[in-house]
Amino acid sequence: MYKCDVKRMDDKIKTFSKFGDAGHGGITRYSLSPEAYMARNEFIKRMEAIGAVIEMDDVADIYATLPGTDPNAKRIVMASHCDSVKNGGNYDGILGVMGAMEVLETIAAENIPHKHPITAMIWTNEEGSLYPPAMMVSGIVCNDYLPPAIAKNFKYENMMASKSVLDGATTFGEMLEKSPHKGDKKNRLNPDQYEAMFELHIEQGPILEDAGNEVGVVDCVLGMFNYRIKFYGFAAHAGTFPMAKRNDALYAAAQALCYIHTEVDKLNRPELVYTTGEIVCHPCVHTVIPDYVDFSIDVRHEDPKVLEQVMNILKSLPEKTWAGCKCEIAEQWKRDTVYWNKELVGYVKASAEELGIPHQYIHSGAGHDAQFASYMLPTTMIFVQSKDGLSHCEPEYSTPEHCTAGASVMLNAVLKVDAAK
Amino acid sequence: MYKCDVKRMDDKIKTFSKFGDAGHGGITRYSLSPEAYMARNEFIKRMEAIGAVIEMDDVADIYATLPGTDPNAKRIVMASHCDSVKNGGNYDGILGVMGAMEVLETIAAENIPHKHPITAMIWTNEEGSLYPPAMMVSGIVCNDYLPPAIAKNFKYENMMASKSVLDGATTFGEMLEKSPHKGDKKNRLNPDQYEAMFELHIEQGPILEDAGNEVGVVDCVLGMFNYRIKFYGFAAHAGTFPMAKRNDALYAAAQALCYIHTEVDKLNRPELVYTTGEIVCHPCVHTVIPDYVDFSIDVRHEDPKVLEQVMNILKSLPEKTWAGCKCEIAEQWKRDTVYWNKELVGYVKASAEELGIPHQYIHSGAGHDAQFASYMLPTTMIFVQSKDGLSHCEPEYSTPEHCTAGASVMLNAVLKVDAAK
Repeated sequence: MYKCDVKRMDDKIKTFSKFGDAGHGGITRYSLSPEAYMARNEFIKRMEAIGAVIEMDDVADIYATLPGTDPNAKRIVMASHCDSVKNGGNYDGILGVMGAMEVLETIAAENIPHKHPITAMIWTNEEGSLYPPAMMVSGIVCNDYLPPAIAKNFKYENMMASKSVLDGATTFGEMLEKSPHKGDKKNRLNPDQYEAMFELHIEQGPILEDAGNEVGVVDCVLGMFNYRIKFYGFAAHAGTFPMAKRNDALYAAAQALCYIHTEVDKLNRPELVYTTGEIVCHPCVHTVIPDYVDFSIDVRHEDPKVLEQVMNILKSLPEKTWAGCKCEIAEQWKRDTVYWNKELVGYVKASAEELGIPHQYIHSGAGHDAQFASYMLPTTMIFVQSKDGLSHCEPEYSTPEHCTAGASVMLNAVLKVDAAK
Repeated sequence: MYKCDVKRMDDKIKTFSKFGDAGHGGITRYSLSPEAYMARNEFIKRMEAIGAVIEMDDVADIYATLPGTDPNAKRIVMASHCDSVKNGGNYDGILGVMGAMEVLETIAAENIPHKHPITAMIWTNEEGSLYPPAMMVSGIVCNDYLPPAIAKNFKYENMMASKSVLDGATTFGEMLEKSPHKGDKKNRLNPDQYEAMFELHIEQGPILEDAGNEVGVVDCVLGMFNYRIKFYGFAAHAGTFPMAKRNDALYAAAQALCYIHTEVDKLNRPELVYTTGEIVCHPCVHTVIPDYVDFSIDVRHEDPKVLEQVMNILKSLPEKTWAGCKCEIAEQWKRDTVYWNKELVGYVKASAEELGIPHQYIHSGAGHDAQFASYMLPTTMIFVQSKDGLSHCEPEYSTPEHCTAGASVMLNAVLKVDAAK
């Protein structure tokens, strides 16, 4: 068994955490921003230092490859992203990049023999924080392999037209044209040239920490759906309109939101998660009874039957009375549970066992680029314990030891693929 | 008994409705806008045509006065505003101006004898739609007479610095400096020169219509308070954070909002109105559990004891559990019930009776400039039936007959003051 180096890993964590330092322990590092180029250039510098070959594709993804001994063998790739949400943490995304670097650095430092070329890859614009949507570039690169209902949301031309949420004008395509990392379309990730993909990531939840496990052997990305629940009332003056005649859309929404909690909780599925994160209220003035309110609901579970049970509860809402308001529901999107490649999952599990690293099976509740890649080539993910389950915020933290444990598991799983294929 | 003229009134309604026509039956006519000057100039033109003397004060209020036979008598004033909310109706505010014009036009046309000078007045910036706050200029003009807790919110310098909600830069003071209607401070409404004030207004609620009454004899402006109810939770990823560990601020707010309705309704006070019109959610992203939510609550009732009962329900919120979130409440403002001058209310009631106009006593739930004026001189209001209780929206409507009935009541009430003083 080979092990990665905690000191080298810690040095990378400290170095990359400077690129976009937002002043409260975390970072803001939008895709194609000066801060992102600092991180990308550091990646290139360190990978060139160990003899890796650098390539870029037409959507600015970067590939650093250590050649293997078999000239006919396909590449094994470890990929993640270096962009963040606004005021995000030092681990989401970049851990997968640093883990891939650490694997290649360990291979180089210890002269570990391998037949296949092994690649560390940076995906462009995973978060979609500045140029929506999230997972934009993996959606472009894997487009031909995605289910049509997903693929249509990631058409190249539409993605190039995505506008900055900051200025509402600059497009992703303009920034990409100016990018020093824009390369050749032929370099894009593809199943002819690549054998398998791994993505190391923080858990972003508290399950591993609560169970005392350092590493999660991810088996799937949970199926999910997202609905919008809408209420149509009647605006009137707060001071002059009697209560009995009101159709208050915010009161309607509050009642329905509580009803959803009560009914969904009756299903008694502790592993089910559902979130009403966004609410819109019109006109949203303290002296006016709201005439329109909607809220989002995001529901995730492995089993499509459980998702259907929740959907049935939502579908029953328009039949009920909500403070005299009309209720409508609208599906925004949904995806089926994506299971990782069983062979790769087995290699991850075996590697953790052989290394003596406390681990468990776990589902991914969040979406990742690997999920789109999985439609194109065998793919899996490895999770690392997140302190307090925090993510997408500056206090996000994983210990250098846990990060290194995750990289060691990935290294050995990569070598198992290398040996098997 | 004298009666106003429905044809002349209808002509005014049709004419003034053009100034700021927003295309859906109503108007957008911000204070000190080109549309407002069209309305003001029409007022001046028509008042000069009947021999009224035009004056302006330093905050662009306009006064049109018909002299009386007694050179020592104080003025009787009828005042309202010609500015509107965005996409407001053709009646709120402007009805009081048109009603005052109609009274003077009737007096002129019918040569009705009167001792006191009688004045029609336009207040500047009642709505505060472009330059907040509402009732800005009456707050300035009546400042020395207002209770200190209210007066401090309307200090001249602060009001001049109020910024346009459209560009966030232009100040009310700058626009006032440029105003062709900026006059002399000595012309301001004052108790030495003015005997009494009337304001004719639409009801903005459905009470008169439901009761089949054309006119409301307003006895008070309801006491009210406005609180902010705040919930502090914990942000985490929608897909990765187990339900049992969540502190969801939006779920907390929804529960508390429903609880408030349940508890307040138990007080069984049908004339009490309370409104949760505004909600703020952070970060308001569909994939993140909200960590902060607050909503406004506006509560209005004549009896301070009833207001206190509601306040006690709100004060009990922080002691309870709301989805694991901390709850705080914060008073934003409050005002006591303002009773109109009993003598003037009596004149309004007697005039409606003598004219045979169906009427009733009614409270004002909304605030009006007359409310601030009432701290300075005897003041009262007259309401006109509102179709469907609609107001602050383009379908706002009152029939020409009801508007004229309101003006006739005001005319005769003014003449009763003229005779009595």
